[in-house]
Amino acid sequence: MAKQLLVIHGPNLNLLGQRETSIYGSKTLDDINHNISAKADSLAVSVDFFQSNNESDLVDKIQEAAQHCDGIIINAAAYTHTSVAIRDAIAAINTPVIEVHLSNVHQREEFRHHSYIAPVCIGQITGFGEDSYLLAVEAFASKLNS
Amino acid sequence: MAKQLLVIHGPNLNLLGQRETSIYGSKTLDDINHNISAKADSLAVSVDFFQSNNESDLVDKIQEAAQHCDGIIINAAAYTHTSVAIRDAIAAINTPVIEVHLSNVHQREEFRHHSYIAPVCIGQITGFGEDSYLLAVEAFASKLNS
Amino acid sequence: MAKQLLVIHGPNLNLLGQRETSIYGSKTLDDINHNISAKADSLAVSVDFFQSNNESDLVDKIQEAAQHCDGIIINAAAYTHTSVAIRDAIAAINTPVIEVHLSNVHQREEFRHHSYIAPVCIGQITGFGEDSYLLAVEAFASKLNS
Amino acid sequence: MAKQLLVIHGPNLNLLGQRETSIYGSKTLDDINHNISAKADSLAVSVDFFQSNNESDLVDKIQEAAQHCDGIIINAAAYTHTSVAIRDAIAAINTPVIEVHLSNVHQREEFRHHSYIAPVCIGQITGFGEDSYLLAVEAFASKLNS
Amino acid sequence: MAKQLLVIHGPNLNLLGQRETSIYGSKTLDDINHNISAKADSLAVSVDFFQSNNESDLVDKIQEAAQHCDGIIINAAAYTHTSVAIRDAIAAINTPVIEVHLSNVHQREEFRHHSYIAPVCIGQITGFGEDSYLLAVEAFASKLNS
Amino acid sequence: MAKQLLVIHGPNLNLLGQRETSIYGSKTLDDINHNISAKADSLAVSVDFFQSNNESDLVDKIQEAAQHCDGIIINAAAYTHTSVAIRDAIAAINTPVIEVHLSNVHQREEFRHHSYIAPVCIGQITGFGEDSYLLAVEAFASKLNS
Amino acid sequence: MAKQLLVIHGPNLNLLGQRETSIYGSKTLDDINHNISAKADSLAVSVDFFQSNNESDLVDKIQEAAQHCDGIIINAAAYTHTSVAIRDAIAAINTPVIEVHLSNVHQREEFRHHSYIAPVCIGQITGFGEDSYLLAVEAFASKLNS
Amino acid sequence: MAKQLLVIHGPNLNLLGQRETSIYGSKTLDDINHNISAKADSLAVSVDFFQSNNESDLVDKIQEAAQHCDGIIINAAAYTHTSVAIRDAIAAINTPVIEVHLSNVHQREEFRHHSYIAPVCIGQITGFGEDSYLLAVEAFASKLNS
Amino acid sequence: MAKQLLVIHGPNLNLLGQRETSIYGSKTLDDINHNISAKADSLAVSVDFFQSNNESDLVDKIQEAAQHCDGIIINAAAYTHTSVAIRDAIAAINTPVIEVHLSNVHQREEFRHHSYIAPVCIGQITGFGEDSYLLAVEAFASKLNS
Amino acid sequence: MAKQLLVIHGPNLNLLGQRETSIYGSKTLDDINHNISAKADSLAVSVDFFQSNNESDLVDKIQEAAQHCDGIIINAAAYTHTSVAIRDAIAAINTPVIEVHLSNVHQREEFRHHSYIAPVCIGQITGFGEDSYLLAVEAFASKLNS
Amino acid sequence: MAKQLLVIHGPNLNLLGQRETSIYGSKTLDDINHNISAKADSLAVSVDFFQSNNESDLVDKIQEAAQHCDGIIINAAAYTHTSVAIRDAIAAINTPVIEVHLSNVHQREEFRHHSYIAPVCIGQITGFGEDSYLLAVEAFASKLNS
Amino acid sequence: MAKQLLVIHGPNLNLLGQRETSIYGSKTLDDINHNISAKADSLAVSVDFFQSNNESDLVDKIQEAAQHCDGIIINAAAYTHTSVAIRDAIAAINTPVIEVHLSNVHQREEFRHHSYIAPVCIGQITGFGEDSYLLAVEAFASKLNS
Repeated sequence: MAKQLLVIHGPNLNLLGQRETSIYGSKTLDDINHNISAKADSLAVSVDFFQSNNESDLVDKIQEAAQHCDGIIINAAAYTHTSVAIRDAIAAINTPVIEVHLSNVHQREEFRHHSYIAPVCIGQITGFGEDSYLLAVEAFASKLNS
Repeated sequence: MAKQLLVIHGPNLNLLGQRETSIYGSKTLDDINHNISAKADSLAVSVDFFQSNNESDLVDKIQEAAQHCDGIIINAAAYTHTSVAIRDAIAAINTPVIEVHLSNVHQREEFRHHSYIAPVCIGQITGFGEDSYLLAVEAFASKLNS
Repeated sequence: MAKQLLVIHGPNLNLLGQRETSIYGSKTLDDINHNISAKADSLAVSVDFFQSNNESDLVDKIQEAAQHCDGIIINAAAYTHTSVAIRDAIAAINTPVIEVHLSNVHQREEFRHHSYIAPVCIGQITGFGEDSYLLAVEAFASKLNS
Repeated sequence: MAKQLLVIHGPNLNLLGQRETSIYGSKTLDDINHNISAKADSLAVSVDFFQSNNESDLVDKIQEAAQHCDGIIINAAAYTHTSVAIRDAIAAINTPVIEVHLSNVHQREEFRHHSYIAPVCIGQITGFGEDSYLLAVEAFASKLNS
Repeated sequence: MAKQLLVIHGPNLNLLGQRETSIYGSKTLDDINHNISAKADSLAVSVDFFQSNNESDLVDKIQEAAQHCDGIIINAAAYTHTSVAIRDAIAAINTPVIEVHLSNVHQREEFRHHSYIAPVCIGQITGFGEDSYLLAVEAFASKLNS
Repeated sequence: MAKQLLVIHGPNLNLLGQRETSIYGSKTLDDINHNISAKADSLAVSVDFFQSNNESDLVDKIQEAAQHCDGIIINAAAYTHTSVAIRDAIAAINTPVIEVHLSNVHQREEFRHHSYIAPVCIGQITGFGEDSYLLAVEAFASKLNS
Repeated sequence: MAKQLLVIHGPNLNLLGQRETSIYGSKTLDDINHNISAKADSLAVSVDFFQSNNESDLVDKIQEAAQHCDGIIINAAAYTHTSVAIRDAIAAINTPVIEVHLSNVHQREEFRHHSYIAPVCIGQITGFGEDSYLLAVEAFASKLNS
Repeated sequence: MAKQLLVIHGPNLNLLGQRETSIYGSKTLDDINHNISAKADSLAVSVDFFQSNNESDLVDKIQEAAQHCDGIIINAAAYTHTSVAIRDAIAAINTPVIEVHLSNVHQREEFRHHSYIAPVCIGQITGFGEDSYLLAVEAFASKLNS
Repeated sequence: MAKQLLVIHGPNLNLLGQRETSIYGSKTLDDINHNISAKADSLAVSVDFFQSNNESDLVDKIQEAAQHCDGIIINAAAYTHTSVAIRDAIAAINTPVIEVHLSNVHQREEFRHHSYIAPVCIGQITGFGEDSYLLAVEAFASKLNS
Repeated sequence: MAKQLLVIHGPNLNLLGQRETSIYGSKTLDDINHNISAKADSLAVSVDFFQSNNESDLVDKIQEAAQHCDGIIINAAAYTHTSVAIRDAIAAINTPVIEVHLSNVHQREEFRHHSYIAPVCIGQITGFGEDSYLLAVEAFASKLNS
Repeated sequence: MAKQLLVIHGPNLNLLGQRETSIYGSKTLDDINHNISAKADSLAVSVDFFQSNNESDLVDKIQEAAQHCDGIIINAAAYTHTSVAIRDAIAAINTPVIEVHLSNVHQREEFRHHSYIAPVCIGQITGFGEDSYLLAVEAFASKLNS
Repeated sequence: MAKQLLVIHGPNLNLLGQRETSIYGSKTLDDINHNISAKADSLAVSVDFFQSNNESDLVDKIQEAAQHCDGIIINAAAYTHTSVAIRDAIAAINTPVIEVHLSNVHQREEFRHHSYIAPVCIGQITGFGEDSYLLAVEAFASKLNS
């Protein structure tokens, strides 16, 4: 059966395409999800999507996904830098998680250089725009098939 | 047409009038909103109110207000010091935002001296009790009419 | 009339019994609540329970409990280290609060050594597994009866 | 009798209108003082002005104003960040003081984020250009009349 | 045979009842020891007491107690924050140790927020006055009987 | 014509397969290069390899590659954390650079959490073992073809 | 010939007797100078006085006093914590200088714990109210006569 | 009856006259005590002496002296910078304490700039060699007679 | 017409030749000014001099010089490390400024390693004694003639 | 006559052989002393031993040994990181001191990386188990014979 | 005989004229060397040049130059901020060294504000583009002829 | 067969005997190597030597030595404080390494107090001049024979 991935988008990512386009690009979240789906199809994995501005919804979703998903790709956005709750949720489950960011966080404000979730994820992909997500799908496909 | 403002009250401000009255004063949030409305009327601007203890509700409201408001006045209370998500929401919209605080945060605990949202607001008014809000309305009236 | 306590469990504690059992033990939250109830019964106090992964739900519950409870026992979990909102809620009410932790937070990551809520609670009990809760019930029974 | 305010402008503010206009705007100090006077008139308070590049002149003026003024509005400019002497002068008098800044200091260099005088003022208004002063007049009018 | 506990009181606790009573309460150390004994009796455990102002006496006592005690309750007072020697003594023995404090150390000076011994104890109980000791006895009774 | 990539391996990576295999895995550098070549072939890009333990050789190679390569993938290993010279070399050229790491550096020593080169690279991929390189090739293929 | 001392009072000390009397006491600067003179007379040393709110006046006075004084007693007040210029003036002369403070600076704000001038003075006397000055006169009398 | 003072000398001060004479001078502790006695006699106060290298002996002595002394002069030497126990002892008693140092601690290693006991003493006299003690006697004579 | 330079000497530089000669050398300020003039003559530029111990006099002079000078050479001495006001004055004018120091500040106290004015000057010359000034004249001659 | 060494063992070293044997090894202190004696014999130096858990006993012993010993080898254990008193004792004597540690302190907790006594010892030997002592004897033999 | 200087250019300076020209200008290293030679000729000193991207080549060159050069001018570029080895080489020789930088390092990233080599050079010249080198030649000519 | 040791000398140690002789002594590196050889002979171990100013040559040598040496003694000199690459090389091999320093690094600049390589070496010997090497040979002889 096809492996199942969940892509989680954190706060304010619903604004993609209109928000600070010089940093985040002009594609909408739907555009990006569409491309992620296409990538997943080409690699024969299934993918679902979830976006929320709510820290605990992300925690709930991570807990719930752990029941039936083979991998989680998360762009925790602002919560990357402030949420121990999301870190604890990731640490609490056995499902592997990959952290992604659209922008190169190391070129931005000092407080964006620290990630609470990086130490509990298997890896991190930052700075490639929507390709950050596509590469994470690729990484899971490689990992789950090996 | 009258300019439209939104006043956002963050966590625990619903308790005003009963909470630590030596710091926050004895007026309730309704009292304050009433006075803000009166001030707005006198300056011929419209004003709506929103209070929530929920970080993501504040993010959602900021995103939504950006569609139809001319200015936002926010007392993010505790989230001032911890929420990158609210900062990102403010940075993501074009609507100008003014940060207010009832108390003089610089006379309180060290962690209240830092604001995540100050750098993405146009200005900050702190320490005047309910007048902090009234002055912010005045500031918007001045700005929107110029 | 019997004194009324509320026990609040913070984020990811719903996973107890399956999450990082080497740190948190193998009992489920229901097991623990069951034992807390038994302890409370033996001391002739009443006890209610609340669990949420949501910071503002915890804030709301603290505010609401202040209306009718004689004491609150809180394991704020991850929010211990990041939530000024919960701190402010506790400071805003007159009901006494005891902070508990299952694990000895001082043996874990550096960021778990700091608690935003400790300075506004009457005391802190950490490291005793489920007994941390039971001792807090005991502490309240002693305090409320004296 | 009309309440008496003193507006104190700190170092380099005499250059307004020619200095770094992208930060400070194109109005001269006289323009701003003119508008402050008009605002004061409209609120039936009196206002005097004082500008100096000299830290001790500011200290002297604060001490002297305390004899006959009902309120002081101060933009200590550079001395905001370095002068304990001005802080001590403000703390030493009973006259209330409001701190203002033309620019949003939180968007500028790190060392401008700290104010030695904020903890001894009743409040702070930053980022509104000349309106920072006008709002402070308004704040005093409200406060002195209540 | 009854389990044997040792309660160790650190420097200046011999002054209890006369020292800073607003922080430490008005009971003497003898009063407290009397209540601890009563509590221990009720739980069928034995308890001995030791007080010293001397860091090495505490180290010696910890080493010696490890030969015949089943648990140690220690209020290291000032040495909590400065003694690596006491930490090393606790780490060197197999007997479990519980750290207690009368006052809520998190409400006091910054240097009292750090404990050298917390990471080598099984748990910490702070802020309950003499009840901190009683709860520790309870914790040991629970632990040693399970 | 096929796009040309250069893969640069920093100090001690020549030991792969024998060095701390619990962290770095059991494949040799030749094994990894072989797999990178295969990946590149499948995406119709060319790839060359370079390994050195010498900081200035890496600087020289980056300078030289800028003359004829379309992209550089660099695992600067230890120099990631200490070399401003490599950072300056990357900043000095127009060729885009992707930073990769085999291990999840955020799970290791504190000093490995900071990268001098991250701010001058387009993105960073860490924690996927040899797949970190393969994903970087993929990222370049996607970028150079778009 | 009688040894000649100069007593220098820094900023805001002209307000003594009216400024924050709970910290600084109710005596005026004239009262204190009068008592210093009496003390000096009793020890057969001469004493002059100088007060200024102006950092450079203090620098000038220190330079000038070095021509004809045998010792300087300085309460640099706020400039203690901010003035490298006064430090350099003291370091530049051969006349010995004693630093005094009325209040115990270590019981006040953190920034008052550091003195730029302490390392270039022969000694420091703090916390004795006006006696801090009298003791400094005594110290000079002892030193200059030995 | 004559007021009674106790002079406490901390660790290594028994070596005075032979220890690092360039810092501490060539007088022995007996020489200094002799001169302190003479000074006390001249001011009609009584004085006792105590020296110990032992932190807890100093704590014990402070506790005991509080029963019958009118003032304590303490040179805690090395324990100044490390002993919370001595600080707590001083805070626990009502007898006033003056802190003295022979050398100017601000000209020495960074760690000697901080004193744990300064905030609980009434004042501090540093840098005058044996005169630091004599001035402290003088300060007590002045204080106890007023 | 000859280009016009202004050389500004900060606090305590009037003492040159007598102050800490091991650091600052034995020449007086007049000697140095004489040599600067000679150097300026040889390069066909005019030079004026200004010395003050007063921070605001330096600010005033910088503002005034901006009206008619082509370049400013400043040795702000102690104010280098403490004056935001001088920094702001330099930033406020269009006239280029060169920072000089007689001594190598990097060999001295830690607080002398930071300069508030360096980021707003075109360059910095330190450690060459009077030659620091002469080189700055040379730098201006080169710059103004190109 | 044979040179005389003193070996000082600090707190908790009396527990060697039973304490945390994975760090400190299984030999007792007597075993180690026996081997040190044998080594000393082979190098024709005399050696005495002293162990105490008491900081001031170590200070006293260092002072006393300075009267008749040619060298001191000290493993100050926990006091290495907290005792200024022992540092001052070593600095106060002319006898050379070598610091040793059984374990490699740089592989342990952060607070064990700093030694108060290292700067006043002639050298430091860490990480070789009992051989740390033997090498120190060797170092003294070499030094004292040269 | 003409005095002999060596000019050492550190890493990436071989790219001058093509690298980040907004910071470093458009002249090549050959252009600059040509102008340095001309300057040296005009002052009757000889000059050699050396550029390397290799830290140890710079160390070797400094050691070797010390045998026959009268002065060294070094732009250590990136190694300024990271190389203790170059610092030690400069400290190890008797030949005087001047540190230069093309750009004003104080206007750039925080890590460029610290120089390991500044404390062991006689002086530092920064921010004048190629003139930084020419001024250093001038400084040496002045120094070597005096 | 005799055990084989390699002694690695880092940057600038080739200058021994002429470089800062007050710190490093007057013996040349050849003198020291000669004495190390003699010591090794006396203990029946073989020893080779390597010196380089080049970080990567040290890395290469460590890698290579791991093939045939039984132990490495390294004085990494300046690289001790800056080289993660050497640390990684040591961590990557199974051959035990001892770190030595001629001088007592804890008496020198702050940056010399930290060693990147200490945590991956078995032990550290500092401050004994050439004897640091001889003791390391002794330590290896003891270790390799046991």
